[in-house]
Amino acid sequence: MASLYDGSIQRVIDDFSKLPGIGPKGAQRIAFHLLSAAHDDVQALAQDILDMRERVRFCSICGNVCEADICPICADPRRDHTTICVVQEPKDVMSIERTHEYRGVYHVLGGAINPMANVSPQDLNIASLVRRMQNAENDDNADSISEVILALNPDIEGEATTTYLSRLLAPVGITITRLASGLPVGGDLEYADEITLGRALSGRREV
Amino acid sequence: MASLYDGSIQRVIDDFSKLPGIGPKGAQRIAFHLLSAAHDDVQALAQDILDMRERVRFCSICGNVCEADICPICADPRRDHTTICVVQEPKDVMSIERTHEYRGVYHVLGGAINPMANVSPQDLNIASLVRRMQNAENDDNADSISEVILALNPDIEGEATTTYLSRLLAPVGITITRLASGLPVGGDLEYADEITLGRALSGRREV
Repeated sequence: MASLYDGSIQRVIDDFSKLPGIGPKGAQRIAFHLLSAAHDDVQALAQDILDMRERVRFCSICGNVCEADICPICADPRRDHTTICVVQEPKDVMSIERTHEYRGVYHVLGGAINPMANVSPQDLNIASLVRRMQNAENDDNADSISEVILALNPDIEGEATTTYLSRLLAPVGITITRLASGLPVGGDLEYADEITLGRALSGRREV
Repeated sequence: MASLYDGSIQRVIDDFSKLPGIGPKGAQRIAFHLLSAAHDDVQALAQDILDMRERVRFCSICGNVCEADICPICADPRRDHTTICVVQEPKDVMSIERTHEYRGVYHVLGGAINPMANVSPQDLNIASLVRRMQNAENDDNADSISEVILALNPDIEGEATTTYLSRLLAPVGITITRLASGLPVGGDLEYADEITLGRALSGRREV
């Protein structure tokens, strides 16, 4: 779209167009919404964005986003610190927390191995995961780790990272598991792709 | 979605969820994008939002958004000040400008008559439109107005506003026109709804 608006409106439209999932039409709609919204709400939006950048850091144990040195999950003594669930992104932690099925702790890699995008194992929080496991083994006061769950995305990058990590961690000698592949609940057998259906078949369980 | 993030991230997600066209998942994606984006870009976004609210006002002639007392279009002597195109929103001005077919000036109503949403003619910039036409008639130095084009949305509210304005302005005795209804260019006769096709038929032109 040609930039025909007076300076400051166009700058806001351009800024919002750069955000993921917002196109030029959506950015224009948001700009006019902000022009007519309550002044306090607009002030709060700008301030909250700056606050977030100011306050948010990464947990020194698991690499999740938080506002303290250690995230609320790592700091929680009621969690099971002997089980570590390895995920790609902080939002994956939230997805697993929402299931209410998991009481262990996490390790956030910050991505997956992707040679096409120049993401190698050195760019991920893998060294800190290995260090965490070594500390657990050597320090008598620390909880020993009994299981590492690899909960990466079921796509090419996630699979590559799962393979890499399972080989890397195998010598440590603890249980390494991965999420089950299979039919999504509520799905239809007819519309499942061959790979998913194959995985569901090979991973069948006794009822 | 449950709010599980530490304070400042969740506040940004909540703020963005309130914007038009952004859901909770999209807001979460934007929050994490802003966490990993360049610091200057994030600072610029927050500052641009505040700047826009600070600077943008309404043109004292046409009601369009601008940063001066009079908008660039009203201030431009090369525009045809004898033709006024009446639109609902500032973004409609941009839509018409992009056609490069119109050289007149505008009048922005700020909405359309909508009894369901409690928008009555008093809530719109209609008094200023009438005053503008009276000034043009009485003041010998001002350009007289030769045509008013009603370019409102072809929906119920737009039609109601078009009818209201055409009755209100009829006594002034100048030409009042409205945008043509008909088939969209590139459309298919088969998929046109009956009302649109009926309008296209009744508004047929000699080739």
